[in-house]
Amino acid sequence: MDNLSRLAIHTMTTKPWDLPTAVAKFSAAGVPGVGVWRQWLAGRPLAESRAMLADNGLHAVSLVRGGFFPGLNAAERTAALDDTRRALDEAAAVGAPQVVLVCGARPELSLPENRRQITEGVAACLDHARQTGVKLALEPLHPMYADCRSAINTIGQCNDMIDQLGDTWLGIAADVYHIWWDPQLESEIARAGRRIIGFHVCDWMTPTADFLNDRGLMGEGCIDIPGIRGLVEKAGFDGPIEVEIFSTRHWARDQDQFLADIITAYKTKV
Amino acid sequence: MDNLSRLAIHTMTTKPWDLPTAVAKFSAAGVPGVGVWRQWLAGRPLAESRAMLADNGLHAVSLVRGGFFPGLNAAERTAALDDTRRALDEAAAVGAPQVVLVCGARPELSLPENRRQITEGVAACLDHARQTGVKLALEPLHPMYADCRSAINTIGQCNDMIDQLGDTWLGIAADVYHIWWDPQLESEIARAGRRIIGFHVCDWMTPTADFLNDRGLMGEGCIDIPGIRGLVEKAGFDGPIEVEIFSTRHWARDQDQFLADIITAYKTKV
Repeated sequence: MDNLSRLAIHTMTTKPWDLPTAVAKFSAAGVPGVGVWRQWLAGRPLAESRAMLADNGLHAVSLVRGGFFPGLNAAERTAALDDTRRALDEAAAVGAPQVVLVCGARPELSLPENRRQITEGVAACLDHARQTGVKLALEPLHPMYADCRSAINTIGQCNDMIDQLGDTWLGIAADVYHIWWDPQLESEIARAGRRIIGFHVCDWMTPTADFLNDRGLMGEGCIDIPGIRGLVEKAGFDGPIEVEIFSTRHWARDQDQFLADIITAYKTKV
Repeated sequence: MDNLSRLAIHTMTTKPWDLPTAVAKFSAAGVPGVGVWRQWLAGRPLAESRAMLADNGLHAVSLVRGGFFPGLNAAERTAALDDTRRALDEAAAVGAPQVVLVCGARPELSLPENRRQITEGVAACLDHARQTGVKLALEPLHPMYADCRSAINTIGQCNDMIDQLGDTWLGIAADVYHIWWDPQLESEIARAGRRIIGFHVCDWMTPTADFLNDRGLMGEGCIDIPGIRGLVEKAGFDGPIEVEIFSTRHWARDQDQFLADIITAYKTKV
């Protein structure tokens, strides 16, 4: 794609840049969308962050992140609900239409109990989503994170939960990194249809040296990104394409060059 | 379980021990079964390894491993078939009733092509399985290995392949490390029924520091091993329970103490 109108970049992707720097750089490069991580909002009024985006001709496509619902006691679970509701408030304040949910998991709890607490937590936040006018986007995480980051690991599980809780204020953020291996990907994306409200891209490196921070730039790895993009678009998705790369290797590079490489990769490998 | 009659240990689990040492130690500890990795057979006639097991009152429960079917060209694919057929020959020679298949994957190939070549490769080895009287055991590997170790990642995929190729010489090795996260685990194990011919145990550590060699001893991690054992036994499995732990941490310990800990964990955490 030569047109950058659907491109968005997460602030975490260019982690060395603070919000003013990222916003200026993205704007100068013609990148219109920003996936805003909450750490980048700290230290200034939310209205100021919103104005900073708007003044540079940018818009927030998502706020990252809420969730982490499972807890070992009621206090922990309540804290997660409060934090997710705050994330919805922050999203509304900066103009982001969705909060991405990393659903959480605690290795001390059984998998069924983790999943039960997640469904309960999501349900408990839907009313606040309605009040703020901001959607919750379930992000299934790769099964290698099922112990401590998310016990929701497939699009199929998201579909099951949305069957139960409704799709008015709840959708799915499909990140190729987490879902590319799934033998049921095609059928579950088709089943999801317009429930898919987010599409995140990066790549899977071989070998992957680190569980968290060794993602690749699109085209560096083995994921069939255009193929998965075709599936979500066939299902009806036409929203922003969010570049979300955690990479110690890329963060160590010159970020201007990395941004240029992201744009080239977006044009040729997505 | 106080009775050790179903306990088997993979030679890779006590990696510092060569075959004569492992065999002597397992026998002295009352462990009857051995999962034999092919490296441990190198350097002596197969009949000698077989006799070493028998003389110590042990038996081989599995030979590890064949597979790695996908290749970038015909020569690579043929080499994988030859190697898997040799594994069947070796299994027959040492008295192992099954060869565990790590199906393979190449990041240069698409996921559908990897999966197609795997099915083709398995099919091409079935006649040799019949001739040797040794079964092939498909081992679904965790999705974090889908790029370069196995594009077969769920019990469901194994069931689909066996629906296609038949179960006379083909079964499933269910390793809790690879399958514990799967939301369809219960239904797919029930669907598999007596196709499950191997059950491997270890545990998932939080955090996991290394993609390959940071597995835990049963009880150290978050996997509900008794729960999964219940599922495979409900499906009809009553074979050996194979302890397969790759762990730099445990390999660095005194292996006699590690063996004692394995037996305790087998009795109390499986």
